[in-house]
Amino acid sequence: MINTTLKTILHHRSIRKFTVEDIDEQTLDLILKAACNGSTMGNMQLYSIVVIKDKERMKLMAPFHFNQPIATNAPVILTFVADLHRFNKYCEYRGAVTDAYSNLQSYHWAVIDAIIAAQNACVAAESMGLGICWLGTITYNADKFVEVLQLPKHTVPVACIALGFPDENPELTDKLPLEALVHYETYNDYIKESIDWLYAEKEVHENTKRLLIENNLPNLAQIFTERRYTKTDNEHFAKVLQKIIEEQGFLE
Amino acid sequence: MINTTLKTILHHRSIRKFTVEDIDEQTLDLILKAACNGSTMGNMQLYSIVVIKDKERMKLMAPFHFNQPIATNAPVILTFVADLHRFNKYCEYRGAVTDAYSNLQSYHWAVIDAIIAAQNACVAAESMGLGICWLGTITYNADKFVEVLQLPKHTVPVACIALGFPDENPELTDKLPLEALVHYETYNDYIKESIDWLYAEKEVHENTKRLLIENNLPNLAQIFTERRYTKTDNEHFAKVLQKIIEEQGFLE
Repeated sequence: MINTTLKTILHHRSIRKFTVEDIDEQTLDLILKAACNGSTMGNMQLYSIVVIKDKERMKLMAPFHFNQPIATNAPVILTFVADLHRFNKYCEYRGAVTDAYSNLQSYHWAVIDAIIAAQNACVAAESMGLGICWLGTITYNADKFVEVLQLPKHTVPVACIALGFPDENPELTDKLPLEALVHYETYNDYIKESIDWLYAEKEVHENTKRLLIENNLPNLAQIFTERRYTKTDNEHFAKVLQKIIEEQGFLE
Repeated sequence: MINTTLKTILHHRSIRKFTVEDIDEQTLDLILKAACNGSTMGNMQLYSIVVIKDKERMKLMAPFHFNQPIATNAPVILTFVADLHRFNKYCEYRGAVTDAYSNLQSYHWAVIDAIIAAQNACVAAESMGLGICWLGTITYNADKFVEVLQLPKHTVPVACIALGFPDENPELTDKLPLEALVHYETYNDYIKESIDWLYAEKEVHENTKRLLIENNLPNLAQIFTERRYTKTDNEHFAKVLQKIIEEQGFLE
């Protein structure tokens, strides 16, 4: 009953350690073709993919990925860019209005298009035995990536995927039970009792126990709010993001 | 060389006509499991899925989908919601800070998480012979869907997928060539000549020719800017979106 595609998807976990093996052109080409065959707003394909293989460029970008080893050790890094620039150029050269897509709604479409493309690339890569890891840092330092990747106005980088052959075999990540995520017909709000049991398994997970000891904190929620993603940091990076969305011409 | 997962992805096209056949529980369960096994920011799973099967609810939502037939004819509609509410509740019940994620950066993470989940659901569904169609209208009338789906603060609906067994077999959609979308190391900007050849195939496509006659317009760019997604409409819906992001508590 479970076909090979489902097996691939259900077996997904992030791979953070790659062998030195390169990704051949044919494999990379299939990943890119898969990325570019996803659904897209009005078939406008509002994204671009920047393929990065040059180790010098990876090193240049590493600080903006907070020096995660994977940001320089992956044979290939794909950066997915929400892109209205190409379509605007097309409009310009066809005598059409060129500022119809300089707004938040258009930005939103392009983010969605880019993430669909990125996730297709991930599933395609994993189906061929590669490992993948999303680098969420791209959304923290979008302004810096705009510079390094020489992104024009009306583009914002929104996803970054490290690709390579796995040199580790981690366990599946502990996820919330389906009941925590799925609602029927309308949103079924959470009461304390439901939060308690939906997070129960996660809270007793070995990883969680280890984190609590390492951080000397009483629960997983506080690991997030006190250490990983603090209010101060989030509000700082929210300002950076707001600024880059504006500077790149999406709030006109 | 092309495995079955790649075949599924490369064979994707939107299906807008479904048979009356229902989607059985086991199949739907696998789709939901696939959706919930994607990458997610810090393993926080910042999304919810609202499963809609009730025809009355579909009819209630239809006007906000601009009465596309598929919005009521699909046996199942999945709405993907960018969701910080559940995590905030978890923080609340664990004595952690509850307003660390009331900002644009957190919203951005949740949108990305929700779209990854949605695209996983699509690939999973297609691998089992189902057809899918994204309803982009969800981002136009997000405020209305918040009401109908009874979404709490710190949630915004961002994707909507109609699912069913295909009752049509459309051709693959005309896409831009890979060269239009893929850049190496840095963004390679477009000049008029490159736009001309990258859009050439699309411009002579039968669908385009038909549209130009129907709309009495000289080129495809103007079909978009003058008819489909006009500046006035986009700017209106951008305001609606900005307002709902604010009202739902992501600009605090």
